[in-house]
Amino acid sequence: MAATRTFIPTGGVTSPRGFRASGVRAGIKKNGNFDVAIVEASAVVAAAGIFTTNKAQAAPVLVSMEHLKATAGRARAVIVNAGCANACTGDQGRQDAIEMAVLTARALGCRPAEVLVTSTGVIGVNLPMEKVRAGIAAAASSLSTAGADDATRAIMTTDPFPKSCAVQVQGFNGSGVQGFSVGGMCKGSGMIEPRMATMLGFITTDVKIAPAVLHAALVKVADATFNAITVDGECSTNDCVFVLASGESGVEVTSADDADFIGALTDVCGFLAREIVRGGEGATKLVTVNVTGAATPNDAWLAARTICNSPLVKTAIHGGDPNWGRLVAAAGRSGAAFDINTTSVSIGPVQLFVKGVPHDDLAPKAADLLMQKQIAITVDLGLGGNHAATMWTCDFSAEYVRINAEYRT
Amino acid sequence: MAATRTFIPTGGVTSPRGFRASGVRAGIKKNGNFDVAIVEASAVVAAAGIFTTNKAQAAPVLVSMEHLKATAGRARAVIVNAGCANACTGDQGRQDAIEMAVLTARALGCRPAEVLVTSTGVIGVNLPMEKVRAGIAAAASSLSTAGADDATRAIMTTDPFPKSCAVQVQGFNGSGVQGFSVGGMCKGSGMIEPRMATMLGFITTDVKIAPAVLHAALVKVADATFNAITVDGECSTNDCVFVLASGESGVEVTSADDADFIGALTDVCGFLAREIVRGGEGATKLVTVNVTGAATPNDAWLAARTICNSPLVKTAIHGGDPNWGRLVAAAGRSGAAFDINTTSVSIGPVQLFVKGVPHDDLAPKAADLLMQKQIAITVDLGLGGNHAATMWTCDFSAEYVRINAEYRT
Repeated sequence: MAATRTFIPTGGVTSPRGFRASGVRAGIKKNGNFDVAIVEASAVVAAAGIFTTNKAQAAPVLVSMEHLKATAGRARAVIVNAGCANACTGDQGRQDAIEMAVLTARALGCRPAEVLVTSTGVIGVNLPMEKVRAGIAAAASSLSTAGADDATRAIMTTDPFPKSCAVQVQGFNGSGVQGFSVGGMCKGSGMIEPRMATMLGFITTDVKIAPAVLHAALVKVADATFNAITVDGECSTNDCVFVLASGESGVEVTSADDADFIGALTDVCGFLAREIVRGGEGATKLVTVNVTGAATPNDAWLAARTICNSPLVKTAIHGGDPNWGRLVAAAGRSGAAFDINTTSVSIGPVQLFVKGVPHDDLAPKAADLLMQKQIAITVDLGLGGNHAATMWTCDFSAEYVRINAEYRT
Repeated sequence: MAATRTFIPTGGVTSPRGFRASGVRAGIKKNGNFDVAIVEASAVVAAAGIFTTNKAQAAPVLVSMEHLKATAGRARAVIVNAGCANACTGDQGRQDAIEMAVLTARALGCRPAEVLVTSTGVIGVNLPMEKVRAGIAAAASSLSTAGADDATRAIMTTDPFPKSCAVQVQGFNGSGVQGFSVGGMCKGSGMIEPRMATMLGFITTDVKIAPAVLHAALVKVADATFNAITVDGECSTNDCVFVLASGESGVEVTSADDADFIGALTDVCGFLAREIVRGGEGATKLVTVNVTGAATPNDAWLAARTICNSPLVKTAIHGGDPNWGRLVAAAGRSGAAFDINTTSVSIGPVQLFVKGVPHDDLAPKAADLLMQKQIAITVDLGLGGNHAATMWTCDFSAEYVRINAEYRT
C-alpha cells in the first residue's frame, strides 16, 4: 500500500491492537522503583527474538531461546524483571528463569513455552524469588492497554529516562483504508555494543505475519538500529530484543522486504536505539559517526565501531575538543584498509582533515559544533569500494566512571 | 655464562657502556618542561626497532623504519621530541621528521640514516621547527653519561612520573668474570594497547650482537612485556621501541635464545611496561590479569585483552567493587572458546566463581584486596588446551576522562 507513517513519541508497546502491559514494584530494585513488567498479547501470536552474542548467556536468555524454538516462533507474553540479571547463577538461575515462565503462564492461561523471559541488573546474584513470585502475580493482575508506561519504567536499570515510542502506518491498498502500528520500549544503558541484541527491547505490532518473516524483518532492522549503537563496547550476558505480532490490524505482511513494515519497524527500533545512546551512562551528547569511502562493507563497520568505542575520541567529544587526530588514529588501528593520504575528517560540515592534510585553522568552528547535544562526525576513508556505515555513540564522562565504580556499593 | 642479574631502579639508558644522553627545554611543551632528548652511542652500532601497527603511522615512525632498513639495522642516535606527535601532518610532517634526522646527524657527525626519529604529543599539528632546531642543537651539545634522567623527563607527555631502570648481569664464562648491562627509559601513558610497540621505549645495552639477532630478541621480549599491557585499548600513531647495542662490554650474544640477555632485556622491558600501566592516565591501581585454561594461546590473549580493556571491569576495580560478573561477561564476549560451567574467577587467592557457581559470600574479602594498589585477577576458562596469558592494566577513573577531555584546551 502507498502509506504514510506517523511517529508517536508518547506511544509504546500497547499502541498496536491486541496488547496489554503492566509494571509493578516487587522490591527487587533497592530503590523501590517498578521492577517487574509483563507485555501480553491477547492470544498466542507470532514472535521472534535476537540474542546477545556473549557466550556467557544468562539463564533467561537460554530459556527464551529454547521457548521460541519449541513453539516455532509463537508467544503469548514476555515477563521481565530488573534489578537482578540472573546471569552466572548456575543451576539455580536456570530453575528460577523457568519458574518465572511457569508462573506467568499459569496466571495468563498459556503454556510456559509461550512465555519469553528476560532479566536485567546485577550479574552473579540469584533472583529473590519470593519477591519475583509476588511481582509476577501483581503484574499479571494489573495488565491493561494503558500499562505501557509502567512497563517501560519497570525495565529500567541505570537508564536516566524511560524509552518508548510507536509508529502508525495508514494507507490505501485498493480495497480501502488500512492501517497498522508498531510500538516498542527498551532499556539501556551501559554494556551496549553492536553485533546482535545489545539491550532489552520489546517491540509489538498488529500486522499479520508468519514467525519466520517476522524474524527475518527483525534481524534486518536490528543491523541498522540496535546493532549500530554503542555506549562502552561492552556486550551484556542478558541482551535481547523481542517482537510480537498480534495480527489484529488485519494487514498482512508476507515478506521481510515489505517497505511499509520495514520502514515502521526501522523508525521504532532506530528511535529506541538512539534513545539508548542518548541515555547512555553518563552521556551528555549523542554522536552520529558516518564512515564513507571504505574498501568493503565490513571495513566501514570496523572503522565506525572502533571510532565509536575509542575512549580518546569519546573523552575529546565530552570536552568539546575537535581533536580529529584521534579519529584518524582510531580508523588507522581499526583493521580497515586505510591510507592516510586519502582520508578526510569532518565534524558537521567543517572539514578538519582533507586527504591527509590538516586544516587546523577550522578547529574553533568545529569546537562550537561540539558544544551541541547532537554531533555528526564523518570519516571518509577515500577508498575505491566506497562503502559506508552509520553508527551512534555517546561521549565519555566522569559520570560514567562514577556510575560504574559505584554500581553495587 | 652462569650469571646473576641485578636490578638497578635508578639506572637508565646511560647505564650500559658506550652511551650518552641529554634532555633540554626547547619550548615545544606549553608548560616549559624538558621536551627534546637525544640518546647517542659512541659509534654507529647495532639497532632494532618495533613500530605501531596503527595504519596511520606518524612521519617519524615511517622515517625511522626507512632508516633502519637503509642501514640494515645500524644507528648512532635517537632524537626524540615531546609536545607534538608530528602525526597526520602531510608532506610537511615528513620533511620535518627528515630534517630532525639531518640536524642531529650533522651535530653528531654521522649520516642522517643513522639517526632514528620519534615524536610524541598532540596529533595533527606541525612541529614548531624553529624550536625543534634550537632544541636539537642544545641537546647535541649537552650529551653526557649523566644525561639519562634529563632524557627520561624530556620524553614524558601526560606521564605522572619518569620511567627508567637498568639491569646489570655478571657472570663467569670460563675465561673470567664478564658483565654487561641493559638500560631503558619509556613514556606512557594513554593510547596504550598491545600488539607491537605500544609507547615510546628506548633500550640500550653494551652486549655485542648482530642487528638481526637484536631485532629477534626485541620482538620476543616485547610480546611478553610492552605488548602485554593496556591502559585504554588505544594504539597510537607514533609508538615505537628502539634498542641500541654498543658492544662495549665485550660480551657477545649470538642468539635470541641467550638466557642471560633475554632475561635482562625482559627485566628492563617488563619493569618499564608495568611502570607505564602504573602511571596510566588517571590510574590508581596496577592490575595483573592472568587467563588460564584457555583452549589456544590466542584465546588466552583474546580473553586477557578483552578483560584488560573492559570499561566495566576497570571502573569496578576503581570503585573497589568485586563485581566478578563483569570479568565473566568480558571473557564471554572476547571471542575465546568459553563455557560458563568450566569458568572460575579469583581476585588474589579469593575464588568468587568456581566452575559456573558464584561464591558471593566471599565478596567482602575480595573487596578488601581491591583496595590495594596492586591487584591480581585470575580467570580460569577451565578448557583442555590449558593455555595461559598474563597482561597488565590499570583501573579507570574519572581522572582519565578529565585528562583526555581537556588535553588540548
